[in-house]
Amino acid sequence: MYTLYFSPGSANLVVHLALLEIGVPYTLKRIDFDKDEQHSPAYLAINPHGVVPTLVVDGVPHSEAAALAMLLTERHPDAGLAPPLGSAQRADFLQWMFYLANTLQPQFRQWFFPGDHLPEAAETIKQAARIGIEKCWAYIDAHLAQHGPHLLGAQHGLVDFYALMLMRWSRNMPKPATNWPQLAALASALKARPSWKRLYELEGLTEWP
Amino acid sequence: MYTLYFSPGSANLVVHLALLEIGVPYTLKRIDFDKDEQHSPAYLAINPHGVVPTLVVDGVPHSEAAALAMLLTERHPDAGLAPPLGSAQRADFLQWMFYLANTLQPQFRQWFFPGDHLPEAAETIKQAARIGIEKCWAYIDAHLAQHGPHLLGAQHGLVDFYALMLMRWSRNMPKPATNWPQLAALASALKARPSWKRLYELEGLTEWP
Repeated sequence: MYTLYFSPGSANLVVHLALLEIGVPYTLKRIDFDKDEQHSPAYLAINPHGVVPTLVVDGVPHSEAAALAMLLTERHPDAGLAPPLGSAQRADFLQWMFYLANTLQPQFRQWFFPGDHLPEAAETIKQAARIGIEKCWAYIDAHLAQHGPHLLGAQHGLVDFYALMLMRWSRNMPKPATNWPQLAALASALKARPSWKRLYELEGLTEWP
Repeated sequence: MYTLYFSPGSANLVVHLALLEIGVPYTLKRIDFDKDEQHSPAYLAINPHGVVPTLVVDGVPHSEAAALAMLLTERHPDAGLAPPLGSAQRADFLQWMFYLANTLQPQFRQWFFPGDHLPEAAETIKQAARIGIEKCWAYIDAHLAQHGPHLLGAQHGLVDFYALMLMRWSRNMPKPATNWPQLAALASALKARPSWKRLYELEGLTEWP
Protein backbone atom coordinates (compact mmCIF):
# COMPACT_ATOMS: atom_id res chain seq x y z
CA MET A 1 0.00 0.00 0.00
CA TYR A 2 2.84 2.39 0.91
CA THR A 3 6.47 2.73 -0.15
CA LEU A 4 8.73 5.01 1.89
CA TYR A 5 11.98 6.32 0.40
CA PHE A 6 14.28 7.21 3.26
CA SER A 7 17.75 8.13 4.41
CA PRO A 8 18.54 7.02 7.97
CA GLY A 9 17.47 9.61 10.52
CA SER A 10 16.34 12.21 7.97
CA ALA A 11 12.93 13.86 7.76
CA ASN A 12 11.47 10.48 6.84
CA LEU A 13 11.71 9.63 10.54
CA VAL A 14 8.35 11.12 11.52
CA VAL A 15 6.63 9.42 8.57
CA HIS A 16 8.28 6.12 9.40
CA LEU A 17 7.26 6.36 13.05
CA ALA A 18 3.69 7.11 11.98
CA LEU A 19 3.67 4.00 9.76
CA LEU A 20 5.01 1.86 12.61
CA GLU A 21 2.56 3.26 15.16
CA ILE A 22 -0.35 2.72 12.76
CA GLY A 23 0.84 -0.79 12.05
CA VAL A 24 0.09 -0.72 8.33
CA PRO A 25 2.27 -2.67 5.83
CA TYR A 26 4.81 -0.70 3.82
CA THR A 27 7.94 -1.15 1.74
CA LEU A 28 11.18 0.65 2.59
CA LYS A 29 13.62 1.91 -0.03
CA ARG A 30 16.87 3.45 1.11
CA ILE A 31 18.29 6.42 -0.80
CA ASP A 32 22.07 6.38 -0.29
CA PHE A 33 23.19 9.98 0.13
CA ASP A 34 26.86 8.91 0.09
CA LYS A 35 26.29 7.73 -3.47
CA ASP A 36 24.25 10.89 -4.25
CA GLU A 37 21.28 8.67 -5.09
CA GLN A 38 18.93 11.51 -4.16
CA HIS A 39 20.02 13.22 -7.37
CA SER A 40 19.73 10.19 -9.63
CA PRO A 41 17.34 10.64 -12.57
CA ALA A 42 15.15 7.84 -11.23
CA TYR A 43 14.73 9.51 -7.85
CA LEU A 44 14.35 13.05 -9.22
CA ALA A 45 11.50 11.73 -11.35
CA ILE A 46 9.49 11.02 -8.20
CA ASN A 47 10.98 13.79 -6.00
CA PRO A 48 12.02 16.86 -8.05
CA HIS A 49 13.80 18.50 -5.08
CA GLY A 50 15.95 15.40 -4.51
CA VAL A 51 15.09 15.16 -0.84
CA VAL A 52 13.65 12.54 1.47
CA PRO A 53 11.08 11.39 2.31
CA THR A 54 8.99 10.34 -0.64
CA LEU A 55 5.91 8.31 0.19
CA VAL A 56 4.24 6.44 -2.63
CA VAL A 57 0.52 6.24 -1.89
CA ASP A 58 -1.64 4.12 -4.18
CA GLY A 59 1.07 4.34 -6.81
CA VAL A 60 1.54 8.13 -6.67
CA PRO A 61 4.67 9.68 -5.11
CA HIS A 62 4.26 12.52 -2.60
CA SER A 63 6.64 14.59 -0.49
CA GLU A 64 6.85 16.99 2.50
CA ALA A 65 7.40 15.01 5.69
CA ALA A 66 4.80 16.74 7.88
CA ALA A 67 2.21 16.54 5.10
CA LEU A 68 2.83 12.82 4.62
CA ALA A 69 2.60 12.08 8.33
CA MET A 70 -0.62 14.06 8.54
CA LEU A 71 -2.02 12.26 5.50
CA LEU A 72 -1.38 8.97 7.28
CA THR A 73 -3.35 10.16 10.33
CA GLU A 74 -6.25 11.03 8.00
CA ARG A 75 -6.14 7.70 6.20
CA HIS A 76 -5.89 5.72 9.44
CA PRO A 77 -7.99 7.65 11.95
CA ASP A 78 -8.43 4.59 14.18
CA ALA A 79 -4.73 4.67 15.12
CA GLY A 80 -5.50 7.76 17.21
CA LEU A 81 -2.42 9.70 16.19
CA ALA A 82 -4.44 12.88 15.68
CA PRO A 83 -7.63 14.23 17.27
CA PRO A 84 -10.66 13.57 15.04
CA LEU A 85 -11.95 16.32 12.74
CA GLY A 86 -14.44 18.45 14.58
CA SER A 87 -13.07 17.55 18.02
CA ALA A 88 -12.11 20.25 20.50
CA GLN A 89 -8.41 19.36 20.26
CA ARG A 90 -8.26 19.54 16.49
CA ALA A 91 -7.22 23.22 16.43
CA ASP A 92 -4.40 22.50 18.90
CA PHE A 93 -3.20 19.60 16.77
CA LEU A 94 -3.06 21.74 13.62
CA GLN A 95 -1.45 24.59 15.56
CA TRP A 96 1.39 22.36 16.78
CA MET A 97 1.88 20.73 13.38
CA PHE A 98 2.33 24.15 11.78
CA TYR A 99 4.34 25.59 14.65
CA LEU A 100 6.88 22.79 14.27
CA ALA A 101 6.81 23.00 10.46
CA ASN A 102 6.91 26.78 10.23
CA THR A 103 9.02 27.94 13.16
CA LEU A 104 11.25 25.13 14.45
CA GLN A 105 12.04 22.79 11.55
CA PRO A 106 13.17 25.50 9.04
CA GLN A 107 15.87 26.58 11.47
CA PHE A 108 17.30 23.06 11.41
CA ARG A 109 17.66 23.38 7.64
CA GLN A 110 19.75 26.47 8.31
CA TRP A 111 21.71 24.73 11.05
CA PHE A 112 22.58 21.73 8.86
CA PHE A 113 22.84 23.49 5.47
CA PRO A 114 23.76 27.06 6.42
CA GLY A 115 25.48 27.88 3.13
CA ASP A 116 22.57 26.98 0.85
CA HIS A 117 21.77 30.49 -0.30
CA LEU A 118 24.82 32.57 0.67
CA PRO A 119 27.84 30.31 1.18
CA GLU A 120 30.06 33.05 2.58
CA ALA A 121 27.54 33.73 5.36
CA ALA A 122 27.20 30.10 6.47
CA GLU A 123 28.70 30.52 9.95
CA THR A 124 26.54 33.55 10.74
CA ILE A 125 23.37 31.84 9.56
CA LYS A 126 24.22 28.76 11.59
CA GLN A 127 24.63 30.78 14.77
CA ALA A 128 21.34 32.62 14.22
CA ALA A 129 19.63 29.25 13.69
CA ARG A 130 21.10 27.91 16.94
CA ILE A 131 19.70 30.85 18.90
CA GLY A 132 16.31 30.47 17.23
CA ILE A 133 16.15 26.72 17.89
CA GLU A 134 16.96 27.21 21.56
CA LYS A 135 14.18 29.78 21.87
CA CYS A 136 11.76 27.18 20.46
CA TRP A 137 12.88 24.51 22.93
CA ALA A 138 12.39 26.94 25.80
CA TYR A 139 8.90 27.76 24.57
CA ILE A 140 7.88 24.13 24.07
CA ASP A 141 9.34 23.12 27.43
CA ALA A 142 7.33 25.83 29.19
CA HIS A 143 4.19 24.67 27.38
CA LEU A 144 4.80 21.06 28.48
CA ALA A 145 5.38 22.14 32.07
CA GLN A 146 1.93 23.69 32.10
CA HIS A 147 -0.06 21.45 29.76
CA GLY A 148 2.01 18.25 29.33
CA PRO A 149 3.29 15.64 29.55
CA HIS A 150 2.53 15.56 25.81
CA LEU A 151 2.02 18.51 23.48
CA LEU A 152 -1.74 17.96 23.49
CA GLY A 153 -1.86 16.92 27.14
CA ALA A 154 -2.59 13.43 28.43
CA GLN A 155 -2.35 11.52 25.16
CA HIS A 156 0.68 11.20 22.88
CA GLY A 157 0.24 11.56 19.14
CA LEU A 158 1.76 12.65 15.87
CA VAL A 159 2.82 16.10 17.07
CA ASP A 160 4.95 14.44 19.76
CA PHE A 161 6.66 12.14 17.26
CA TYR A 162 7.30 15.16 15.04
CA ALA A 163 8.89 16.97 17.98
CA LEU A 164 10.87 13.82 18.81
CA MET A 165 12.46 13.79 15.36
CA LEU A 166 13.48 17.41 15.75
CA MET A 167 14.82 16.74 19.26
CA ARG A 168 16.95 13.96 17.82
CA TRP A 169 18.34 16.35 15.23
CA SER A 170 19.55 18.60 18.06
CA ARG A 171 21.56 15.84 19.79
CA ASN A 172 24.97 17.17 18.73
CA MET A 173 24.13 20.84 19.13
CA PRO A 174 25.66 22.94 21.93
CA LYS A 175 22.34 22.75 23.83
CA PRO A 176 20.37 19.67 22.78
CA ALA A 177 16.62 19.65 23.39
CA THR A 178 17.07 17.20 26.26
CA ASN A 179 18.75 19.96 28.26
CA TRP A 180 15.18 21.11 28.94
CA PRO A 181 13.59 18.81 31.55
CA GLN A 182 10.08 18.47 30.13
CA LEU A 183 11.44 17.78 26.66
CA ALA A 184 13.81 15.18 28.09
CA ALA A 185 10.91 13.47 29.84
CA LEU A 186 8.81 13.49 26.68
CA ALA A 187 11.69 12.05 24.64
CA SER A 188 12.26 9.27 27.18
CA ALA A 189 8.60 8.29 27.20
CA LEU A 190 8.35 8.14 23.41
CA LYS A 191 11.67 6.31 23.02
CA ALA A 192 10.42 3.58 25.34
CA ARG A 193 7.78 2.62 22.79
CA PRO A 194 8.33 -0.44 20.55
CA SER A 195 8.10 1.76 17.43
CA TRP A 196 11.36 3.51 18.34
CA LYS A 197 13.35 0.27 18.66
CA ARG A 198 11.90 -1.05 15.41
CA LEU A 199 12.68 2.24 13.64
CA TYR A 200 16.33 1.97 14.72
CA GLU A 201 16.57 -1.58 13.40
CA LEU A 202 14.92 -0.74 10.09
CA GLU A 203 16.76 2.51 9.38
CA GLY A 204 20.04 1.19 10.83
CA LEU A 205 20.30 3.98 13.41
CA THR A 206 22.60 3.87 16.45
CA GLU A 207 23.03 7.39 17.89
CA TRP A 208 20.53 8.69 20.48
CA PRO A 209 18.90 5.26 21.03
CA MET B 1 -18.98 31.94 15.86
CA TYR B 2 -15.49 33.31 15.02
CA THR B 3 -13.48 36.32 16.11
CA LEU B 4 -10.36 37.19 14.14
CA TYR B 5 -7.67 39.41 15.66
CA PHE B 6 -5.72 41.00 12.84
CA SER B 7 -3.25 43.62 11.74
CA PRO B 8 -3.79 44.89 8.16
CA GLY B 9 -2.02 42.68 5.62
CA SER B 10 -0.32 40.43 8.19
CA ALA B 11 -0.52 36.64 8.37
CA ASN B 12 -4.19 36.99 9.24
CA LEU B 13 -4.78 37.65 5.53
CA VAL B 14 -5.07 33.97 4.54
CA VAL B 15 -7.43 33.28 7.45
CA HIS B 16 -9.52 36.32 6.62
CA LEU B 17 -9.77 35.33 2.95
CA ALA B 18 -10.86 31.85 3.99
CA LEU B 19 -13.60 33.32 6.19
CA LEU B 20 -14.79 35.56 3.34
CA GLU B 21 -14.71 32.75 0.77
CA ILE B 22 -16.62 30.45 3.13
CA GLY B 23 -19.14 33.20 3.84
CA VAL B 24 -19.49 32.47 7.55
CA PRO B 25 -20.18 35.29 10.05
CA TYR B 26 -17.25 36.54 12.13
CA THR B 27 -16.15 39.50 14.22
CA LEU B 28 -12.98 41.45 13.43
CA LYS B 29 -10.74 42.97 16.09
CA ARG B 30 -7.80 45.07 14.98
CA ILE B 31 -4.55 44.88 16.94
CA ASP B 32 -2.74 48.21 16.49
CA PHE B 33 0.96 47.45 16.10
CA ASP B 34 1.80 51.19 16.17
CA LYS B 35 0.46 51.24 19.73
CA ASP B 36 2.21 47.92 20.51
CA GLU B 37 -1.18 46.38 21.31
CA GLN B 38 0.18 42.96 20.35
CA HIS B 39 2.17 43.03 23.58
CA SER B 40 -0.65 44.26 25.82
CA PRO B 41 -1.44 41.91 28.75
CA ALA B 42 -4.93 41.35 27.36
CA TYR B 43 -3.63 40.19 23.98
CA LEU B 44 -0.74 38.16 25.35
CA ALA B 45 -3.30 36.27 27.45
CA ILE B 46 -4.85 34.88 24.26
CA ASN B 47 -1.69 34.86 22.11
CA PRO B 48 1.48 34.30 24.18
CA HIS B 49 3.82 35.07 21.24
CA GLY B 50 2.17 38.46 20.69
CA VAL B 51 1.57 37.83 17.01
CA VAL B 52 -1.41 37.88 14.66
CA PRO B 53 -3.63 36.19 13.79
CA THR B 54 -5.60 34.84 16.69
CA LEU B 55 -8.85 33.13 15.81
CA VAL B 56 -11.32 32.55 18.60
CA VAL B 57 -13.28 29.40 17.82
CA ASP B 58 -16.23 28.54 20.05
CA GLY B 59 -14.74 30.78 22.74
CA VAL B 60 -11.20 29.35 22.62
CA PRO B 61 -8.31 31.35 21.11
CA HIS B 62 -6.00 29.63 18.61
CA SER B 63 -3.02 30.74 16.54
CA GLU B 64 -0.76 29.79 13.56
CA ALA B 65 -2.21 31.23 10.37
CA ALA B 66 -1.93 28.14 8.17
CA ALA B 67 -3.40 25.93 10.91
CA LEU B 68 -6.35 28.28 11.38
CA ALA B 69 -7.06 28.47 7.67
CA MET B 70 -6.87 24.69 7.43
CA LEU B 71 -9.18 24.31 10.44
CA LEU B 72 -11.73 26.49 8.63
CA THR B 73 -11.60 24.20 5.58
CA GLU B 74 -12.27 21.23 7.88
CA ARG B 75 -15.16 22.94 9.66
CA HIS B 76 -16.72 24.13 6.39
CA PRO B 77 -16.02 21.38 3.86
CA ASP B 78 -18.89 22.51 1.60
CA ALA B 79 -17.00 25.69 0.73
CA GLY B 80 -14.67 23.55 -1.35
CA LEU B 81 -11.47 25.30 -0.28
CA ALA B 82 -9.68 21.98 0.22
CA PRO B 83 -10.02 18.55 -1.39
CA PRO B 84 -12.11 16.21 0.79
CA LEU B 85 -10.36 13.72 3.09
CA GLY B 86 -9.66 10.53 1.25
CA SER B 87 -9.73 12.18 -2.19
CA ALA B 88 -6.88 11.73 -4.64
CA GLN B 89 -5.87 15.41 -4.36
CA ARG B 90 -5.68 15.40 -0.58
CA ALA B 91 -1.96 14.56 -0.48
CA ASP B 92 -1.20 17.39 -2.92
CA PHE B 93 -3.19 19.79 -0.80
CA LEU B 94 -1.28 18.87 2.36
CA GLN B 95 2.02 18.90 0.47
CA TRP B 96 1.47 22.49 -0.72
CA MET B 97 0.23 23.68 2.66
CA PHE B 98 3.41 22.41 4.29
CA TYR B 99 5.70 23.50 1.46
CA LEU B 100 4.45 27.06 1.85
CA ALA B 101 4.58 26.88 5.66
CA ASN B 102 7.92 25.14 5.92
CA THR B 103 9.99 26.45 3.02
CA LEU B 104 8.62 29.76 1.75
CA GLN B 105 6.92 31.57 4.64
CA PRO B 106 9.80 31.22 7.17
CA GLN B 107 12.08 33.09 4.78
CA PHE B 108 9.69 36.04 4.84
CA ARG B 109 10.12 36.18 8.61
CA GLN B 110 13.83 36.50 7.98
CA TRP B 111 13.30 39.10 5.25
CA PHE B 112 11.05 41.28 7.43
CA PHE B 113 12.70 40.64 10.82
CA PRO B 114 16.27 39.70 9.92
CA GLY B 115 17.78 40.80 13.23
CA ASP B 116 15.55 38.69 15.49
CA HIS B 117 18.23 36.27 16.64
CA LEU B 118 21.54 37.94 15.73
CA PRO B 119 21.02 41.69 15.21
CA GLU B 120 24.54 42.32 13.88
CA ALA B 121 23.92 39.80 11.07
CA ALA B 122 20.60 41.28 9.94
CA GLU B 123 21.73 42.42 6.49
CA THR B 124 23.34 39.05 5.70
CA ILE B 125 20.29 37.09 6.82
CA LYS B 126 18.03 39.36 4.79
CA GLN B 127 20.03 38.76 1.62
CA ALA B 128 20.06 34.96 2.13
CA ALA B 129 16.28 35.09 2.62
CA ARG B 130 15.83 37.06 -0.61
CA ILE B 131 17.76 34.42 -2.57
CA GLY B 132 15.76 31.63 -0.95
CA ILE B 133 12.42 33.31 -1.63
CA GLU B 134 13.29 33.81 -5.29
CA LYS B 135 14.19 30.12 -5.62
CA CYS B 136 10.73 29.27 -4.26
CA TRP B 137 8.97 31.56 -6.74
CA ALA B 138 10.88 29.99 -9.61
CA TYR B 139 9.90 26.51 -8.41
CA ILE B 140 6.22 27.37 -7.94
CA ASP B 141 6.09 29.16 -11.30
CA ALA B 142 7.51 26.11 -13.07
CA HIS B 143 4.95 23.91 -11.30
CA LEU B 144 2.10 26.21 -12.40
CA ALA B 145 3.35 26.22 -16.00
CA GLN B 146 3.06 22.45 -16.02
CA HIS B 147 0.11 21.77 -13.73
CA GLY B 148 -1.69 25.13 -13.30
CA PRO B 149 -3.36 27.50 -13.52
CA HIS B 150 -3.85 26.85 -9.77
CA LEU B 151 -1.54 24.96 -7.45
CA LEU B 152 -3.84 21.93 -7.50
CA GLY B 153 -4.76 22.37 -11.17
CA ALA B 154 -8.15 23.43 -12.49
CA GLN B 155 -9.75 24.53 -9.25
CA HIS B 156 -8.58 27.32 -6.92
CA GLY B 157 -8.52 26.73 -3.18
CA LEU B 158 -6.88 27.51 0.13
CA VAL B 159 -3.34 26.78 -1.05
CA ASP B 160 -3.72 29.47 -3.73
CA PHE B 161 -4.94 32.05 -1.23
CA TYR B 162 -2.02 31.14 1.03
CA ALA B 163 0.39 31.67 -1.89
CA LEU B 164 -1.41 34.94 -2.72
CA MET B 165 -0.73 36.31 0.77
CA LEU B 166 2.96 35.45 0.41
CA MET B 167 3.06 36.97 -3.09
CA ARG B 168 1.63 40.17 -1.64
CA TRP B 169 4.39 40.21 0.98
CA SER B 170 6.96 40.20 -1.83
CA ARG B 171 5.53 43.32 -3.53
CA ASN B 172 8.33 45.65 -2.43
CA MET B 173 11.16 43.15 -2.82
CA PRO B 174 13.76 43.47 -5.60
CA LYS B 175 12.02 40.68 -7.52
CA PRO B 176 8.35 40.45 -6.52
CA ALA B 177 6.52 37.18 -7.17
CA THR B 178 4.64 38.78 -10.04
CA ASN B 179 7.89 38.94 -12.03
CA TRP B 180 7.17 35.27 -12.73
CA PRO B 181 4.41 35.01 -15.38
CA GLN B 182 2.42 32.07 -14.00
CA LEU B 183 2.42 33.59 -10.52
CA ALA B 184 1.31 36.93 -11.95
CA ALA B 185 -1.59 35.24 -13.73
CA LEU B 186 -2.61 33.36 -10.60
CA ALA B 187 -2.51 36.56 -8.53
CA SER B 188 -4.63 38.43 -11.09
CA ALA B 189 -7.25 35.70 -11.17
CA LEU B 190 -7.56 35.52 -7.37
CA LYS B 191 -7.56 39.30 -6.95
CA ALA B 192 -10.53 39.55 -9.32
CA ARG B 193 -12.67 37.68 -6.80
CA PRO B 194 -15.10 39.64 -4.57
CA SER B 195 -13.33 38.34 -1.45
CA TRP B 196 -10.21 40.35 -2.29
CA LYS B 197 -12.08 43.66 -2.60
CA ARG B 198 -13.98 43.01 0.62
CA LEU B 199 -10.74 42.09 2.41
CA TYR B 200 -9.19 45.41 1.38
CA GLU B 201 -12.20 47.34 2.67
CA LEU B 202 -12.31 45.48 5.96
CA GLU B 203 -8.58 45.50 6.71
CA GLY B 204 -8.12 49.02 5.31
CA LEU B 205 -5.51 47.93 2.74
CA THR B 206 -4.48 50.02 -0.24
CA GLU B 207 -1.18 48.69 -1.68
CA TRP B 208 -1.22 45.87 -4.28
CA PRO B 209 -5.00 46.12 -4.91
